[in-house]
Amino acid sequence: MLEGDLQDQVLGEYHSDLGVTHSQVATLPGFATESGHEFKEIQIAYQTLGKLSLRRDNVILVCHALSGDAHMAGLNPATHRPGWWDFHVGPGKAIDTDRFFVVCPNVLGGCSGSTGPSSLNPETGRPFATNFPPVTIRDMVRAQAALLDHLKLPEIFAVTGGSMGGMQALVWATDYPERVRTCVPIATCTAHHAMQIAFNEIGRQAILTDPNWRDGHYYDNPDGARPAHGLAVARMVGHVTYLSEYSLRAKFGRRLQRAAQPEDLFPDFFSVESYLHHQGDSFVRRFDPNSYLYLTKAIDRFDFLAGREAREALDKVRARFLVISFESDWLYPPSQSRDLVRLLKRHNLAVTYLNLPTPYGHDSFLIHNPEFSRALSHFLNQEYDSRAANGAA
Amino acid sequence: MLEGDLQDQVLGEYHSDLGVTHSQVATLPGFATESGHEFKEIQIAYQTLGKLSLRRDNVILVCHALSGDAHMAGLNPATHRPGWWDFHVGPGKAIDTDRFFVVCPNVLGGCSGSTGPSSLNPETGRPFATNFPPVTIRDMVRAQAALLDHLKLPEIFAVTGGSMGGMQALVWATDYPERVRTCVPIATCTAHHAMQIAFNEIGRQAILTDPNWRDGHYYDNPDGARPAHGLAVARMVGHVTYLSEYSLRAKFGRRLQRAAQPEDLFPDFFSVESYLHHQGDSFVRRFDPNSYLYLTKAIDRFDFLAGREAREALDKVRARFLVISFESDWLYPPSQSRDLVRLLKRHNLAVTYLNLPTPYGHDSFLIHNPEFSRALSHFLNQEYDSRAANGAA
Repeated sequence: MLEGDLQDQVLGEYHSDLGVTHSQVATLPGFATESGHEFKEIQIAYQTLGKLSLRRDNVILVCHALSGDAHMAGLNPATHRPGWWDFHVGPGKAIDTDRFFVVCPNVLGGCSGSTGPSSLNPETGRPFATNFPPVTIRDMVRAQAALLDHLKLPEIFAVTGGSMGGMQALVWATDYPERVRTCVPIATCTAHHAMQIAFNEIGRQAILTDPNWRDGHYYDNPDGARPAHGLAVARMVGHVTYLSEYSLRAKFGRRLQRAAQPEDLFPDFFSVESYLHHQGDSFVRRFDPNSYLYLTKAIDRFDFLAGREAREALDKVRARFLVISFESDWLYPPSQSRDLVRLLKRHNLAVTYLNLPTPYGHDSFLIHNPEFSRALSHFLNQEYDSRAANGAA
Repeated sequence: MLEGDLQDQVLGEYHSDLGVTHSQVATLPGFATESGHEFKEIQIAYQTLGKLSLRRDNVILVCHALSGDAHMAGLNPATHRPGWWDFHVGPGKAIDTDRFFVVCPNVLGGCSGSTGPSSLNPETGRPFATNFPPVTIRDMVRAQAALLDHLKLPEIFAVTGGSMGGMQALVWATDYPERVRTCVPIATCTAHHAMQIAFNEIGRQAILTDPNWRDGHYYDNPDGARPAHGLAVARMVGHVTYLSEYSLRAKFGRRLQRAAQPEDLFPDFFSVESYLHHQGDSFVRRFDPNSYLYLTKAIDRFDFLAGREAREALDKVRARFLVISFESDWLYPPSQSRDLVRLLKRHNLAVTYLNLPTPYGHDSFLIHNPEFSRALSHFLNQEYDSRAANGAA
């Protein structure tokens, strides 16, 4: 079984039902962040799969997590790797591209085609670096809304995502209540608690203390050096928290990667160590360290109710919810999803809650996972069928 | 309540029942490591508290964990900080210095008085750095045995320690069966599984990729620079894994440390972030990065049975065991202690097992913890009393 982010795997002969797929970039004028920064324009990279119905009522918006991008499914022609949700998005899959028109934007602040810290600041002709304004989960969602306006897609049948993507899905349901019919937050929470902040902060410290970070202006480093070591360590920290003890034990145990070499400082070299090094190195090749800082901070700052009374935030919500958590996810534990479910139910919202026994930790929504796939597929298809029968005729 | 390693806390007016205490250093001739390196002599720093009985039958050997040292209790005159086990070692405490003669050596490979990578290599007159041989938990125990020989203490009434200290206690019971009467391994395991190795490896990577590490020969850096950033990140990773979600939530939640400052890259500054920075910084002042590499590797390589048949390893063991784990310890989960207990019981050894409900994670043995203290005290006193009544008369 493949585990973790498909983009970080050495895949050999991976077959995607979609073959090669492409992404594109929209230029959207006049965007202001919550912090008050006014962009004359922003770019948002996005992928669409499937076909828009005549009624434009079959849109599913997929929101990616921290390390994701717009390329959700199909083989990326540049990297020859499948999209990060290829297991669950495609013809006949949980998010069925034979039935739905699926849109996945890269987040504002990201580094895979959307405007972020590594983008050129038009005022200076150099990368924004740390002159980029702080971004919030709400900023990401508002940029997605601008993209959907641009694509003339006023209505979202379903918005979904895991982890940071689930936070975006929640904000969609409250901030655009008239646009969202169903909402599927996965392995997420309404606000990070201290341990989640702590792990993110360790990753940030690894980047911030890398001498190549240079206050974020490493794009200009004459030798081209980036804070790659810091980012690799940050990714390793993240990666371990995404897995379960079971995953690691089953996959690696105490297996040794190779016999000792004369140059080894220590004679043992565990497979799990080699795996972590690979995860760190491959992430460094595709991710911008400043984006890692900005996005983890957006996640840590996220607070679903954001100081509002729950009534104020939830009274206008029309979406029906499917909340999914994984029993073995210790980074976003099921207790956080149950808190979310209770909050939604107290406000008389329609909520289905599934805590799946998948033993692979937080990454359970990214891997080949038939139980998760069936749950997602069943909910989306049933909601879409009943909607077509009742409401939209 | 104070949490975590007392040596890393800002303590204000901490009172130790022992007042100021001291450590000393023994020079021990002719020591060979498992890897075959022959030291002409090694230094082992150690502290003793309490008074040796006339029968020399009241010795308790305390083995410290990764970040510990010989200074187990009382105020350290150099740092004005209490020892790392001051809560549990002292007059009338769980390890009662009015009754027992308590010895705590700094491990071989450490950096607090015992021979380690930062010690001078007599052959070159410069620090060993990475020319120091790999050390193992067995090497640490054999160095402790040499120390006890030097102190003319053939018999150990009890050997105890948490985490890495528990591994040493286990090796004592098997490798010196005739010397050990009781053994109290705490929050430990017979061998690291993949997740424990992974967290240690992240810490090592942070150090190894710090440009000041320079293949370990940073002691000669003309500017005095050490891989301090790497060690601080390693400590932060370690520290989070030592705490429980409950500890972090109760202590910090989402509290903000201070209002935003103009120079802040991001407007929020969570208390838990500031706490981690402090933990990292204070550790850097007292710990050698190379020792961190050597000791974590010794822990990862530790395998209690070490390829032997269980019968071969355990048949000569005479010790009676108290095994303690903590329900909230997710780094050394109770399941590992239960595996140990099953192994010992299968070989007809006397084992008492306590899984305590303390909610503070792996650090539960280091903090003020009356339940733990009572369990330890009860076992030690009862065993000592019954021994005096039955055997030693």
